Amino acid sequence: MDKLLYTGKAKEMWQTADPDVLRVVYLDQATALNGKRKEHFAGKGKAANAISSLVFRYLMDHGVATHFIKKLSANEDLVKKCQMFPLEFVTRNVVAGHFATRYGLKEGAVLANPVEETFFKSDDLDDPFINESATVALKIASHQDLMQMWNVCRKVNDLLRPLFAKAGMQLVDFKLEFGRLSNGEIVLADEFSPDNCRLWDTATNHHMDKDVYRRKIADLTQTYDEVLARLQAVIKEEN
Amino acid sequence: MDKLLYTGKAKEMWQTADPDVLRVVYLDQATALNGKRKEHFAGKGKAANAISSLVFRYLMDHGVATHFIKKLSANEDLVKKCQMFPLEFVTRNVVAGHFATRYGLKEGAVLANPVEETFFKSDDLDDPFINESATVALKIASHQDLMQMWNVCRKVNDLLRPLFAKAGMQLVDFKLEFGRLSNGEIVLADEFSPDNCRLWDTATNHHMDKDVYRRKIADLTQTYDEVLARLQAVIKEEN
Repeated sequence: MDKLLYTGKAKEMWQTADPDVLRVVYLDQATALNGKRKEHFAGKGKAANAISSLVFRYLMDHGVATHFIKKLSANEDLVKKCQMFPLEFVTRNVVAGHFATRYGLKEGAVLANPVEETFFKSDDLDDPFINESATVALKIASHQDLMQMWNVCRKVNDLLRPLFAKAGMQLVDFKLEFGRLSNGEIVLADEFSPDNCRLWDTATNHHMDKDVYRRKIADLTQTYDEVLARLQAVIKEEN
Repeated sequence: MDKLLYTGKAKEMWQTADPDVLRVVYLDQATALNGKRKEHFAGKGKAANAISSLVFRYLMDHGVATHFIKKLSANEDLVKKCQMFPLEFVTRNVVAGHFATRYGLKEGAVLANPVEETFFKSDDLDDPFINESATVALKIASHQDLMQMWNVCRKVNDLLRPLFAKAGMQLVDFKLEFGRLSNGEIVLADEFSPDNCRLWDTATNHHMDKDVYRRKIADLTQTYDEVLARLQAVIKEEN
């Protein structure tokens, strides 16, 4: 029997019989305000999983090492078990969200260079912003590990920004997480879905991500299904 | 007649007849909570100026370029006029203050490496934490300028940490600011006093900086006078 290891904001992680393999279950729910708001959305887990599996496979096909093994069902994946770094790696191509409010900027300006921000994952501390010297001093990750993970973030941005552009969406910003496999290798983990990125329709600038829920703009599942359909079309075209 | 250019939390900046020279007046006041609390302390301006002049002269004697020209009176200096970078460069040797609360740490632990944090100076935004990629993307400073300023911060820490240690004080953390002279050179500006650093008595761990006012522990002017006397003694010994 699989054992529930962890329930996140939109996923459950289950230990399988293989100690190195976990089963991820994408839930039909969304949260906002760091979990303080939570709602059920039928079909959302399936859509998020489909997008994330597609993106992870695309990244792996282009040389990015990830925890992903395979899709198990509409809502489930098998992934390699990792020791997660308690860090969120945020890459921003366009001013939006917290970045806009923190520095008093208007949303929508394309940044002169991608902004790279790390946050220390801690619900108690509200995921505080952290920089490299503090991450190293507090022994959360070494300088070398951080450089390696940021290099992957840059590669992911270089791969996905044009992919989403072809699919008619601007990749505004995204959050990645990393873990270390039992063999010591650092791999991209967690997920890549509109739960942890911002996508704006290139033609209309409409939100096509979790902001439609955070800001009560449109139906979440319908939006995610649209992102999936567009991605599937461009990836099929590439193959 | 000199013209008042700017009133800060504890200083006034006056334009002199020479366009490249300003007169700084250290005020007998202290503020806390980003200026929301303010109080008068007789003799505090004189003590802060004496400490800062002594430290700036010490740094210049050891090869650090600063804006400092000379002490004019107990409360006044002449300094070179700079275009200031709207950044605070904070170096932390020991966990204290905001750093402790932000990451849920206990005050007093010596950090494995000095932590280097930059804050964007903006009263409206409450001086938000900013990292290098955002500083560059928002065109607040170039990567090269930041590297140059951080190199000076490291040199200042390497010079002052042992100096304060000899004077029986632990240099817990400090904040520096930089400006660009009319000839393009970047120099250390602002001040170095217990208003913008934390000093703990090596023997007793007692606060010997603005925290005695922030936390209502002891008399501010008396504390600053003690810091000055100790610094004067060790610098005299060195010469």
